[in-house]
Amino acid sequence: MEPESIRTSEAHQYIGKQVRLHGHVHAIRKLGNLAFLVLRDAKGLLQIVVDQQDQLAVIEELGLESTIIATGEVKAQNKASNGAELLLSQLQVLSLSAGPLPVEINKESKLESLSLSAMLDYRPLTLRAPAVRAIFKLETEICRAFREFLTKESFVEIHSPKIVATGTEGGAQLFTVDYFGRKAYLAQSPQFYKQMMVGVFERVFEIGPVYRAEEHETSRHLNEYISMDYEMGFIESEQDVINLEVRLLQHIFAHLQEVCTAELSLLGAQAPVIKHIPQITLAEAFVILTEKLGWKPQSNGAPDLDPEGERLLCQHFLETEACDLVFVTRYPRESRPFYAMPLNELTRSFDLLFRGLEVTTGGQRIHSHEELVHSIKSRGMEPEAFNDYLQCFRYGMPPHGGLAIGLERLTKQLLNLSNVRLASLFPRDRNRVSP
Amino acid sequence: MEPESIRTSEAHQYIGKQVRLHGHVHAIRKLGNLAFLVLRDAKGLLQIVVDQQDQLAVIEELGLESTIIATGEVKAQNKASNGAELLLSQLQVLSLSAGPLPVEINKESKLESLSLSAMLDYRPLTLRAPAVRAIFKLETEICRAFREFLTKESFVEIHSPKIVATGTEGGAQLFTVDYFGRKAYLAQSPQFYKQMMVGVFERVFEIGPVYRAEEHETSRHLNEYISMDYEMGFIESEQDVINLEVRLLQHIFAHLQEVCTAELSLLGAQAPVIKHIPQITLAEAFVILTEKLGWKPQSNGAPDLDPEGERLLCQHFLETEACDLVFVTRYPRESRPFYAMPLNELTRSFDLLFRGLEVTTGGQRIHSHEELVHSIKSRGMEPEAFNDYLQCFRYGMPPHGGLAIGLERLTKQLLNLSNVRLASLFPRDRNRVSP
Repeated sequence: MEPESIRTSEAHQYIGKQVRLHGHVHAIRKLGNLAFLVLRDAKGLLQIVVDQQDQLAVIEELGLESTIIATGEVKAQNKASNGAELLLSQLQVLSLSAGPLPVEINKESKLESLSLSAMLDYRPLTLRAPAVRAIFKLETEICRAFREFLTKESFVEIHSPKIVATGTEGGAQLFTVDYFGRKAYLAQSPQFYKQMMVGVFERVFEIGPVYRAEEHETSRHLNEYISMDYEMGFIESEQDVINLEVRLLQHIFAHLQEVCTAELSLLGAQAPVIKHIPQITLAEAFVILTEKLGWKPQSNGAPDLDPEGERLLCQHFLETEACDLVFVTRYPRESRPFYAMPLNELTRSFDLLFRGLEVTTGGQRIHSHEELVHSIKSRGMEPEAFNDYLQCFRYGMPPHGGLAIGLERLTKQLLNLSNVRLASLFPRDRNRVSP
Repeated sequence: MEPESIRTSEAHQYIGKQVRLHGHVHAIRKLGNLAFLVLRDAKGLLQIVVDQQDQLAVIEELGLESTIIATGEVKAQNKASNGAELLLSQLQVLSLSAGPLPVEINKESKLESLSLSAMLDYRPLTLRAPAVRAIFKLETEICRAFREFLTKESFVEIHSPKIVATGTEGGAQLFTVDYFGRKAYLAQSPQFYKQMMVGVFERVFEIGPVYRAEEHETSRHLNEYISMDYEMGFIESEQDVINLEVRLLQHIFAHLQEVCTAELSLLGAQAPVIKHIPQITLAEAFVILTEKLGWKPQSNGAPDLDPEGERLLCQHFLETEACDLVFVTRYPRESRPFYAMPLNELTRSFDLLFRGLEVTTGGQRIHSHEELVHSIKSRGMEPEAFNDYLQCFRYGMPPHGGLAIGLERLTKQLLNLSNVRLASLFPRDRNRVSP
């Protein structure tokens, strides 16, 4: 009988049995006439004990990261974190690694001291490190929880085009594409399309890439990132959008705590348990920040929080209400795009700050064709440039609103990563389009 | 007490009760002192009977597609397909449509006779037609079933970058992006990235946009489309990839038949019940096609099936084995990219044809660094151009393979649509980047 094929994470259930495992050679240690080989598969690590001469000879040739199939008996091993090891009886080498590795992905301390550029230059390798890939297992589960929650809430998933004729905000920060000799652009956001789709499905969501040709080089900006968007029709106000996000985040964090226990523990992180998320208007935030927290608003540009302001405000709410998250609402019109629903000189818009960083922007949108045309004109833009978008407003659009969550920012804050690039598989920035 | 808020699809459960519905005015018919208004919400249609003078006056002003909230009592109505109608007691208008509509989206016969360009020019409106939006509800459910199945099979979802430094096949058919003054490209496929990620998670999948700057204008090509990809490590051969796709498609089609009954019925379509999918090598297919079916292979280019060949071959398998699908295997090297696993002068590759059209391309890939470098050189390309990709092969890659399914093509064939553009929300082709 063939030995059963198992994963490293199941080994402790097979003590005394013959099994077969496959994976990469994560580490090798030789000790006289013995060798200890650590096998890494998709689920984790397992130590393999090698004591036969012919196998020791094979192991001499094995570079780290070579792929193998190992057969043997599972033994109890109290010193191992999963309580088991494999006593090797047969070894099949599937592919040899050239080793030595340019980055020591099997040593946590080495990984931690790796420069950001080395971490990204050797991305196909560094992603294999358990503590690095765990970040992306978490992102997979964030997306899954996002979709599951919204699907239950009657949202329909859409795929909007990323090659577009005009920008969402009217032109700035767009990447240009040569589209059969004409100029087209990469979509900054699915904003216009998700609004159009509210007229179709009432509630829609999308998880997809967006593009910002921002020149600045910071620890919180990517030029290509994954935006998790939803948009919902027949709302009373932006509060419906906010209330849904609170429940959505509760679901996502609870889901992570349940299915990513190992990854969170490996990364020394914990998903916040949300009871409620406080709200504060931007004006109120300015008062607290300037009067209590010694913050000085930037004198140029539209009123907004800068990174320091976001950090101080979150610190304040952590100390006073033990909350990791805070909604900042009612941004002035000049700080928001033309489609933001006005409320006197302000708008029915909001940002969500999480541990010191904006992770969501949202709000209610204008749904009246006339008001929308007026708003476009008031910004010095031509309504004709937005004809396709305006089409759906001409023929009946419900009151609606929505938001966008940046996947990599959410992950960065959740895991306390030093740079948002570490939350992107293959990040794109001003100086990087590879690997 | 406030009347309960319900959806049109639930109306028959509320006969005799006061309820509240919201949606768009899909149709209006006046009959003396009565008016019949059809309300469309995200779930379906419901007739509303209006018999009060003041409300009739309001309805005079209502253009088609205006959004409303209607309150009233649900009555049994045998003539209605859902067995119910609403007797209006209160009407709230949320937004007025400018009407008359440029396209009659409430009349199926009119929609069917609409030109493709009108269907796409008025996309924000035509998507609202029940028979049009049903197509995209099906696509949502295809993606959901794809993800659910693969997640259960231990695949991890990834998001690979769409802005890349080099093309997958070495340069042709790429859209150029102006990336901060440098040339970058839009990804033709997540091929390289999903292979790299096999070294990380062993099994990965992605649903995302891909870009082909193909000049040709056919009913089966889009320049931006949604690719459903998976890639799996530690396989024996391409048969593992094929076997998984058979089970995946069985799952997807069964899921659609279960959750999209109304949509399939509205579109007059049925998901095939797959018992098995026959396989034929390309060489065998050529024999059948030329000797039995009177097909003539194109004399120029690498050996492949043309659209006529694909159609005849599917027709043959439908007639002889009652199968809607057939795998064509063992394409010659010259017809496949450099990373295809060779098998003498052929490759371990395959296409899947569905009702006369290729909907999947896949195969086993080369996993040896040496063989891969050799293959790149044998095509007259420089290995240095693929350094990032080659990095992961240098350090141990398992035998692996995968495939890509074109979402819009699969949907087109499933629903017997005349053009793949009808299966894209906002299609992009040589002449269209809007809406």
